[in-house]
Amino acid sequence: MHGGILTGRALKAAGVECIFTLSGGHVMPIYEGCLDEGIRIVDVRHEQAAAHAADAWSRVKPGKIGVAVVTAGPGVTDAVTGVANAWRANSPMLVIGGQGPFVNLGKGSLQEMDHVSLMRPITKWAGACYETERIAEYIEIAIRHAISGIPGPAYLEIPMDILMNEARWDAPVRTIPTEAPRIGPDRRQAEKAVELLRQAQKPMMMVGTSVKWSNAQQELRAFLELTDIPAYANGMGRGMLPHDSKHLFNATRRGAMENADLVILAGSVLDFRLAFGQSIPKDAKILQLEMDYTLVGHNRAADVALVGNLAVSFDVLSEAVRGSGGLSFTSYADTLRAQEAAKKTKDSSTAASDAVPIKAARLCSEIASVVTDDMIVIGDGGDIVAQTAKVLPVPKNGYWLDPGPLGTLGVGMPFALAAQIAHPDKRVLIVYGDGSFGLNGFEYDTAVRHHLPIVGVIGNDAAWGQMMRPQKGMYGRRLRKTRLH
Amino acid sequence: MHGGILTGRALKAAGVECIFTLSGGHVMPIYEGCLDEGIRIVDVRHEQAAAHAADAWSRVKPGKIGVAVVTAGPGVTDAVTGVANAWRANSPMLVIGGQGPFVNLGKGSLQEMDHVSLMRPITKWAGACYETERIAEYIEIAIRHAISGIPGPAYLEIPMDILMNEARWDAPVRTIPTEAPRIGPDRRQAEKAVELLRQAQKPMMMVGTSVKWSNAQQELRAFLELTDIPAYANGMGRGMLPHDSKHLFNATRRGAMENADLVILAGSVLDFRLAFGQSIPKDAKILQLEMDYTLVGHNRAADVALVGNLAVSFDVLSEAVRGSGGLSFTSYADTLRAQEAAKKTKDSSTAASDAVPIKAARLCSEIASVVTDDMIVIGDGGDIVAQTAKVLPVPKNGYWLDPGPLGTLGVGMPFALAAQIAHPDKRVLIVYGDGSFGLNGFEYDTAVRHHLPIVGVIGNDAAWGQMMRPQKGMYGRRLRKTRLH
Amino acid sequence: MHGGILTGRALKAAGVECIFTLSGGHVMPIYEGCLDEGIRIVDVRHEQAAAHAADAWSRVKPGKIGVAVVTAGPGVTDAVTGVANAWRANSPMLVIGGQGPFVNLGKGSLQEMDHVSLMRPITKWAGACYETERIAEYIEIAIRHAISGIPGPAYLEIPMDILMNEARWDAPVRTIPTEAPRIGPDRRQAEKAVELLRQAQKPMMMVGTSVKWSNAQQELRAFLELTDIPAYANGMGRGMLPHDSKHLFNATRRGAMENADLVILAGSVLDFRLAFGQSIPKDAKILQLEMDYTLVGHNRAADVALVGNLAVSFDVLSEAVRGSGGLSFTSYADTLRAQEAAKKTKDSSTAASDAVPIKAARLCSEIASVVTDDMIVIGDGGDIVAQTAKVLPVPKNGYWLDPGPLGTLGVGMPFALAAQIAHPDKRVLIVYGDGSFGLNGFEYDTAVRHHLPIVGVIGNDAAWGQMMRPQKGMYGRRLRKTRLH
Amino acid sequence: MHGGILTGRALKAAGVECIFTLSGGHVMPIYEGCLDEGIRIVDVRHEQAAAHAADAWSRVKPGKIGVAVVTAGPGVTDAVTGVANAWRANSPMLVIGGQGPFVNLGKGSLQEMDHVSLMRPITKWAGACYETERIAEYIEIAIRHAISGIPGPAYLEIPMDILMNEARWDAPVRTIPTEAPRIGPDRRQAEKAVELLRQAQKPMMMVGTSVKWSNAQQELRAFLELTDIPAYANGMGRGMLPHDSKHLFNATRRGAMENADLVILAGSVLDFRLAFGQSIPKDAKILQLEMDYTLVGHNRAADVALVGNLAVSFDVLSEAVRGSGGLSFTSYADTLRAQEAAKKTKDSSTAASDAVPIKAARLCSEIASVVTDDMIVIGDGGDIVAQTAKVLPVPKNGYWLDPGPLGTLGVGMPFALAAQIAHPDKRVLIVYGDGSFGLNGFEYDTAVRHHLPIVGVIGNDAAWGQMMRPQKGMYGRRLRKTRLH
Repeated sequence: MHGGILTGRALKAAGVECIFTLSGGHVMPIYEGCLDEGIRIVDVRHEQAAAHAADAWSRVKPGKIGVAVVTAGPGVTDAVTGVANAWRANSPMLVIGGQGPFVNLGKGSLQEMDHVSLMRPITKWAGACYETERIAEYIEIAIRHAISGIPGPAYLEIPMDILMNEARWDAPVRTIPTEAPRIGPDRRQAEKAVELLRQAQKPMMMVGTSVKWSNAQQELRAFLELTDIPAYANGMGRGMLPHDSKHLFNATRRGAMENADLVILAGSVLDFRLAFGQSIPKDAKILQLEMDYTLVGHNRAADVALVGNLAVSFDVLSEAVRGSGGLSFTSYADTLRAQEAAKKTKDSSTAASDAVPIKAARLCSEIASVVTDDMIVIGDGGDIVAQTAKVLPVPKNGYWLDPGPLGTLGVGMPFALAAQIAHPDKRVLIVYGDGSFGLNGFEYDTAVRHHLPIVGVIGNDAAWGQMMRPQKGMYGRRLRKTRLH
Repeated sequence: MHGGILTGRALKAAGVECIFTLSGGHVMPIYEGCLDEGIRIVDVRHEQAAAHAADAWSRVKPGKIGVAVVTAGPGVTDAVTGVANAWRANSPMLVIGGQGPFVNLGKGSLQEMDHVSLMRPITKWAGACYETERIAEYIEIAIRHAISGIPGPAYLEIPMDILMNEARWDAPVRTIPTEAPRIGPDRRQAEKAVELLRQAQKPMMMVGTSVKWSNAQQELRAFLELTDIPAYANGMGRGMLPHDSKHLFNATRRGAMENADLVILAGSVLDFRLAFGQSIPKDAKILQLEMDYTLVGHNRAADVALVGNLAVSFDVLSEAVRGSGGLSFTSYADTLRAQEAAKKTKDSSTAASDAVPIKAARLCSEIASVVTDDMIVIGDGGDIVAQTAKVLPVPKNGYWLDPGPLGTLGVGMPFALAAQIAHPDKRVLIVYGDGSFGLNGFEYDTAVRHHLPIVGVIGNDAAWGQMMRPQKGMYGRRLRKTRLH
Repeated sequence: MHGGILTGRALKAAGVECIFTLSGGHVMPIYEGCLDEGIRIVDVRHEQAAAHAADAWSRVKPGKIGVAVVTAGPGVTDAVTGVANAWRANSPMLVIGGQGPFVNLGKGSLQEMDHVSLMRPITKWAGACYETERIAEYIEIAIRHAISGIPGPAYLEIPMDILMNEARWDAPVRTIPTEAPRIGPDRRQAEKAVELLRQAQKPMMMVGTSVKWSNAQQELRAFLELTDIPAYANGMGRGMLPHDSKHLFNATRRGAMENADLVILAGSVLDFRLAFGQSIPKDAKILQLEMDYTLVGHNRAADVALVGNLAVSFDVLSEAVRGSGGLSFTSYADTLRAQEAAKKTKDSSTAASDAVPIKAARLCSEIASVVTDDMIVIGDGGDIVAQTAKVLPVPKNGYWLDPGPLGTLGVGMPFALAAQIAHPDKRVLIVYGDGSFGLNGFEYDTAVRHHLPIVGVIGNDAAWGQMMRPQKGMYGRRLRKTRLH
Repeated sequence: MHGGILTGRALKAAGVECIFTLSGGHVMPIYEGCLDEGIRIVDVRHEQAAAHAADAWSRVKPGKIGVAVVTAGPGVTDAVTGVANAWRANSPMLVIGGQGPFVNLGKGSLQEMDHVSLMRPITKWAGACYETERIAEYIEIAIRHAISGIPGPAYLEIPMDILMNEARWDAPVRTIPTEAPRIGPDRRQAEKAVELLRQAQKPMMMVGTSVKWSNAQQELRAFLELTDIPAYANGMGRGMLPHDSKHLFNATRRGAMENADLVILAGSVLDFRLAFGQSIPKDAKILQLEMDYTLVGHNRAADVALVGNLAVSFDVLSEAVRGSGGLSFTSYADTLRAQEAAKKTKDSSTAASDAVPIKAARLCSEIASVVTDDMIVIGDGGDIVAQTAKVLPVPKNGYWLDPGPLGTLGVGMPFALAAQIAHPDKRVLIVYGDGSFGLNGFEYDTAVRHHLPIVGVIGNDAAWGQMMRPQKGMYGRRLRKTRLH
């Protein structure tokens, strides 16, 4: 079997159903391997879209890994943004890149480049396979690193002749796992956490990205049922609780944090989104649940940390709470519930404005009104997404997608391609800004070619809205003439 | 003055007339600096276009440096392909990238990333400036490295607060050179070269990329006038000789090389385009003219090498030829001229075909018929560019642009933006493949917003043509169903 | 307080008792901080020794972190071998390196170098602190990464002026943990492991490095008490079981592995020491206990993996065994015990040889006879260490030290310095080869200056013994004349 | 032929006479290749010495390249300091490093490490050869990069099995050049330089490192004969002019610089040794001669730059001076000469002191009295070298060696080994500090084994003298108790 066939078989062994690619000479043998194994090949118009789609695949298919296959040189460089976005969003994915023939290494073959060095700073693992018979081994290594600890992208380069040479299928590779075994905190650590809870009167929880990558929705809900601690979502924490859950709070976040004596960081890191930890009162305690110890105490020390998969951590914690006789924060939660209700009433009036041009709040509320519970909704933009995020209910299935902390514009259609192919039975909606739309708007062609009934709505303010306001403030109207708003 | 103003002044000191950018928060102060200095700000729809345009600016404005300014995170990653393309094409350019505030280094600010490590493998210099008062110094360093030896891109990161802080303009920076001082080979080396020439009977010259970056057209022509050695162009060597020069050969290249007893590599490297040196007869001698010694003897040893700017090398060589009593290869050249004429007659008939759908040769010859001598022509594609390159005359001004050895698809409109702004008096024509068009086709919006009357022609075969043929051969029709042709 | 004082305070907060250094101008302020905090300063004669000593400190003080402080330029480069050795041995340690002033970054100050890039490939984290007030924060970050997952070295660079500038002590930094919270496998995974055990008839365990770094001796012993599975030690697994434990086997390893139907890799990786997994029978099952998932299945897939601190894993596993009704392999273990006894009798006769020059076996057995149960024994060499390792009992305290998988020669005295200072009540013995002794033999000066009564014994064969034999075989006697044996 | 034989042949083709190594299994086949070709193998006691010796070889054998061969893992890491020192001193050298078998890449073979990434930041080129038949090609590439532009070290890794496999000698590799062809500035640039000279009244020249690497002594002297510009030496500029040359000045440097209206930087960079250019008066002009444009204008802009080999630059410059009618600064030079003479008389009295313990000045003057004109003198230390450098005449052959700008302690005996082997007819003297001696003092064993009659003199102040003084000033006597002085 040639290396392309081996690649296809290894991908199959990893449960891959679909690869995203743009037709390229260096990686052509892989296509044949995929066809053999019944792996769908989705060809896009720019490799950035392939990488974004692989990222999204991992998001909407928990436990599976998205795969992009890109040709050497510009194929790989075009994928960089997608890889970087997955890196910052902790999305496990595999990018297989082409390369000139191994026998011509360093000689300057067509599109030869040092791709591995380029990918190293934005991947959990980047390497090259130089022997056909080791292809499956390398694919396993790449995926293993992608899914270990805090997940992220891996990059594997396979030179053209290695893909074309023949080798035997290395028998012992049966299944390539795409989920790491669950690990969790020691019981003693959970007991310390319960002590912290016991001392608290106004606790709050920030539900963040690692809840998503731990696939810990159920265990999170069970813990909240047990304790009634008010929870707020940020980052990929959005969607981890149903939008109509009584445990999910939104409008009262600032006040709750200002008054908190205990903040539970459930997979929420203290980066810019939480003012590097400075918005938490100085004397408040911190209980941090994270997948990897390297994130614990980043920017501010945690009083107790539960490290591991958050599903396990919530389980262990719930057990410890029950073991210690139970705990309830219902009366505090109810106070906040009342405040939430009050705010909601207030907001609904501005959303009804008939002003022309249309107010963002009105637009968003109109969009919100069509969102159904098994839709997948994707936000791609600056201002419009900030607005939408406030109003739009995350569907019951939990799939709200946005780029994540890298804030990459242009993820809309690439994410949608993956979402629609992964879930053909659901509707996929993109909410775009007019700036964002430009970056990968051409991928509508891909949607059409692949018969994917994706709907996009553009909030068009004919400006880079998020830039326009500070520019006005700082530099006056001058800059606006240069179209940079 | 804040750092943005200092940046603008330093760019002005480097003779920068125009920056390419996509509006971004991290780099906003630079816009103000540019406005102050009368530097035009061209905003595009994807940072890849900004980087490609900066690359092209350096190509169409010899001695000047193209500049892209991109915001942190996805702004920088989106520019990677453009930087990589310039890297492989030896195009000097400067990319200034944003970054989160220096005071929050490593804390996870919005779009914070290790951009410098990412850029290092594809730049001649990549670094960060952490003090406002050193901004001009760093811009000088970055440009100095970009233009030294074999030119290429440089990357400078300036964190947001460093751009916003105030400092005094460091007086001694007057002018930042964007051309390295000319250096050239020792006379003794030129004498050895003349000896080689004297022993040759069927010499040929490959005119390549470094002739372009040495700006050595005039000196090349003088040398050819003196010796009448037949010259062929590849890479960026295209355009270095007028298309109607009697010294420029094309159709006879294979035969001339098979028979050559001396090949003069004038800035042509022995990479895949010359079969790593294997298409040169084993016992033929090699005279190599290169800008940097690291390229000398790559893949095959040179018998004599002239290192330095090729303008100087041709000058020194011509002088040595004259000093040794002169040399002429006219009779050999005339034999080849006769063969060229014969081939041209033969080709013209296929170019007249009326077949439907249109033959590529016919399309190209139609396009050729409208190319005028002060046009700038850009090829962006695979098959169509290969076809076009055979037929299309490079305009008198010498500006034929294609991506270069990285073979990046999608450079069309980004290159055209730069070309048209740099030369408002010329017409700019893009010859596209239908695949290529998709990658940055959205930049037509930029052309429209900036009133740039660029014309693009698409050769539409509704396929990735260069892939389709090998796929048919290797994998039969099966792959075609998956739309990968 | 100046940065040196802040550094001293942060080290104190991390429980550091001692730093290893060689007097250097760039890091001088740190010495003052250490004196203030009562941290002992041990100055050596070559920075390599400082790094090796820091590595050894972490090995002989479980839960603590060894620290080396080295000056810029050659101070850092001299430490590279020590860092690389710790990297491959998974030894957590902190190296603080000097640098020229931040204000002169990139200007070419004395001994300025890009130390961080140099250290990156051999550390778990490498970075620079550019603000005096963030020194403690960076020390915490560096240590956090060093102790996370699979432990290893971290490198922190602090420029000279940052150490000299003044800042306030950042109040919230109280204690810097030097042990990561314990994590362990999910119960369900342990149940799968018990199933594997239940199907086995001839299981064996390889006790390796991660048992050491998990500090899991007690839990390991409890598991062996429970099941009586025969255990063999390799790498840093040596010393994890007392030399007279009935569960520790040695001479029967090859046979036990050939017959095994289940191999338990307790922190033993399948690298060259286990023939990349090929010495395990093809149809044998593998149960792997590792600290980090990235090591699981490396070179050969594991049937069941327990990921986390091995103390937790053994606990969970023992519990599961008990929960499932218990398991015993005593009859199989007894068969092996009989074989072990037979071999031992056989070996003891060769150890009594009176041949001159002395046989290695005799030398080693003589050394063995003086090793007492609270000694620390260090092997530094090739042949002699291989011989010693067979005969020498690891003392009861468990401290046998050798370089680990990097096989670094010259660790002897540097390791001994740390061991003797950390445990002034114990005797420290080094077994040297004559080649090894040469690499850092000068550190005897340090031992003398610091009144450390360390004893070294050199096995002198006046040759690089491990090289001599293959050289004879492959190249005959010729090479020997060149002194390379 | 196996790869080791091919390596030996390629080294021979590069004119290598001697390799420095420490016996290691991974690189053993190379020894056989060297024996075949009559290349001397010098085995040392620590790989650091091998690397330093290779550095020194290039310094004392102009146009040749020093080579160290080191085994995988600690062999390579031990060589890091030597490579870094050569890197900063611009010394071309080749380090060939071992690696585990290519077929086991990434599997964790004995001493497997990512050496290439480690070496990249301190080399001009670092790479690995993965095919036996390409060994000679890679050696040529590595050397080519080492000698291009500003020279420096190159690192080539060859895995063990690649060295053991068989291949044919690739015929076309005949001679591997170890000197780059000479390049130099354009005449027009030289004319600008003459204009600068013509406007000056008090010019001075700093003779620095690039004069050495350009091998430009003769051309420098000719230029000084022509113009009588006073010259001062720093860095490796020492020895470029005979110590008794009337053009070489020393004691008047500070004054000459303060009064200079033109400073000629002849291969002297404006790093810490020249206060980053700030010790040159603000309105003084700068004429810079450098080998590579990247160093031009570093830290301060040059008014005119002559780029290329300095031998060529001085030639072109002398020619331009002559062409312009000549220039003479004799009257200014004579004024300085008088000042020099006065200072010398003053210094000689302090050198005669009979104080006990001996004054450094007295020691140095005693040493100076035995230095003969064909000796090679090596300085290895801090204070003592600073003192020695003031008093000791550089021998006529020009060989004064010190580490260079990295200031590496311990280079003494390693440098001496290379110097004595390269020049068996000369005497080699090392002036040591007592601290420095400790770092590689064990290499006396190598000198003895190889019958090299090297003499070392230790200036013993029983302290790290250069640290002692600032420590006293800054921290009082306290630190002294900790032996850190």
